[in-house]
Amino acid sequence: MSMASLPDGYRAAVFGASGGIGAAFVEKLVADPRCALVLAGARSAQSWNSDRITPFAFDLTNEVTIQHAAEMVGAPDLVLVATGVLHTGRLQPEKTLRSIEADAMARAFAVNATGPALIARHIVPLLPRGRRTLFAVLSAKVGSISDNRLGGWHSYRASKAALNQLIRTISVELARTHPASVCVALHPGTVDTALSKPFQGGVPPERLFTPQMAASQLLAVLDGLGPGSSGRLIGWDGQEIYP
Amino acid sequence: MSMASLPDGYRAAVFGASGGIGAAFVEKLVADPRCALVLAGARSAQSWNSDRITPFAFDLTNEVTIQHAAEMVGAPDLVLVATGVLHTGRLQPEKTLRSIEADAMARAFAVNATGPALIARHIVPLLPRGRRTLFAVLSAKVGSISDNRLGGWHSYRASKAALNQLIRTISVELARTHPASVCVALHPGTVDTALSKPFQGGVPPERLFTPQMAASQLLAVLDGLGPGSSGRLIGWDGQEIYP
Repeated sequence: MSMASLPDGYRAAVFGASGGIGAAFVEKLVADPRCALVLAGARSAQSWNSDRITPFAFDLTNEVTIQHAAEMVGAPDLVLVATGVLHTGRLQPEKTLRSIEADAMARAFAVNATGPALIARHIVPLLPRGRRTLFAVLSAKVGSISDNRLGGWHSYRASKAALNQLIRTISVELARTHPASVCVALHPGTVDTALSKPFQGGVPPERLFTPQMAASQLLAVLDGLGPGSSGRLIGWDGQEIYP
Repeated sequence: MSMASLPDGYRAAVFGASGGIGAAFVEKLVADPRCALVLAGARSAQSWNSDRITPFAFDLTNEVTIQHAAEMVGAPDLVLVATGVLHTGRLQPEKTLRSIEADAMARAFAVNATGPALIARHIVPLLPRGRRTLFAVLSAKVGSISDNRLGGWHSYRASKAALNQLIRTISVELARTHPASVCVALHPGTVDTALSKPFQGGVPPERLFTPQMAASQLLAVLDGLGPGSSGRLIGWDGQEIYP
């Protein structure tokens, strides 16, 4: 796997490097001989077995930490935001309208929508001008409104729809200053991580990706996208998913 | 104006009855001879000059008050959620990515998305079964992702996209228990209210609606919708706006 569309010696920043897909992104990128440096951000700075990986700490719900992270990250060619929450101890995806809770929904918006927007707010101004750069966030097909036929998962769906709208909004502004850049939301498919663990039941084995497969697929898709794809939600198979 | 698709003696509930469009909804409905009662909810209970209007108080960001309001509202045939915030003293629509603020975005999500979802959570179970009922929220075309070509207004756009996704999600569940019902988001156009006041510059006079016109147009559109429109964003002209 090599990001052939980026210059030799490119710099990458991964926000959410401790998650299943985020960690796989870091590993795939550091294995790319064209990549000079991977900045790997997580809630607490991790240790990595490569001197081409620079760990940093940030908290999505604390803007000052994102601002500090941005200062450290410098001018990346590639930014991947691989954060996101579907369920935690207190946040479970809703099966019915009755299970909506204001606090849980607020938390989903904060982590899945506002957090990535804050990263964009501090990182996008640092993207090098006059050449191709890539800014991608992990979103999800269940955030698509037109694709929503099953209902449920109110907070997750709404927060990912909000994220997709934020990416579209940010892409409009980015196109003015960075016309060669690509800013997209990505749907990884169902990936065998802690996030999807309780919901893998109906997924056929060939459609349940390892984090490594998902990371490779998404990087290959991203590498092939042009500025015309900016603002869109793109699936692991390279196909656009309509809002 | 008469809601001919609802039974004679129907009951209506308006959440956000102190706003420009909300107040006009109340006035139009109480003037409809088929309407038995309008429950008119606002931050603080208002006085109205009709004994067919019952005021009540609720706060979108305080679920207990919504729960109490729902108990008072009983089993409405028609529910209109006419709340929403675009700007206040501290919340101004963002012109650029740099003006994003976490608190302002959280407030937009709380008021424009979570609040209406909480109203649905407490009101939808009370909708009469086995006959047509209408549940509509005021949304906005700028919440449409595919229609977003100008950018800006990050928080408002994202919160309305989230609202549109919530309405789609809720409509799926409602269709199972209330197959004759309609649950939609409505785009009122640009209405001459405090919300749009600073942004009316480019709007041609014939496209700047009074709250009374907007309320009449939206009620007429709503009256004509069938269950097949459920989950969609419908404009003042009756046309669907794609997500």
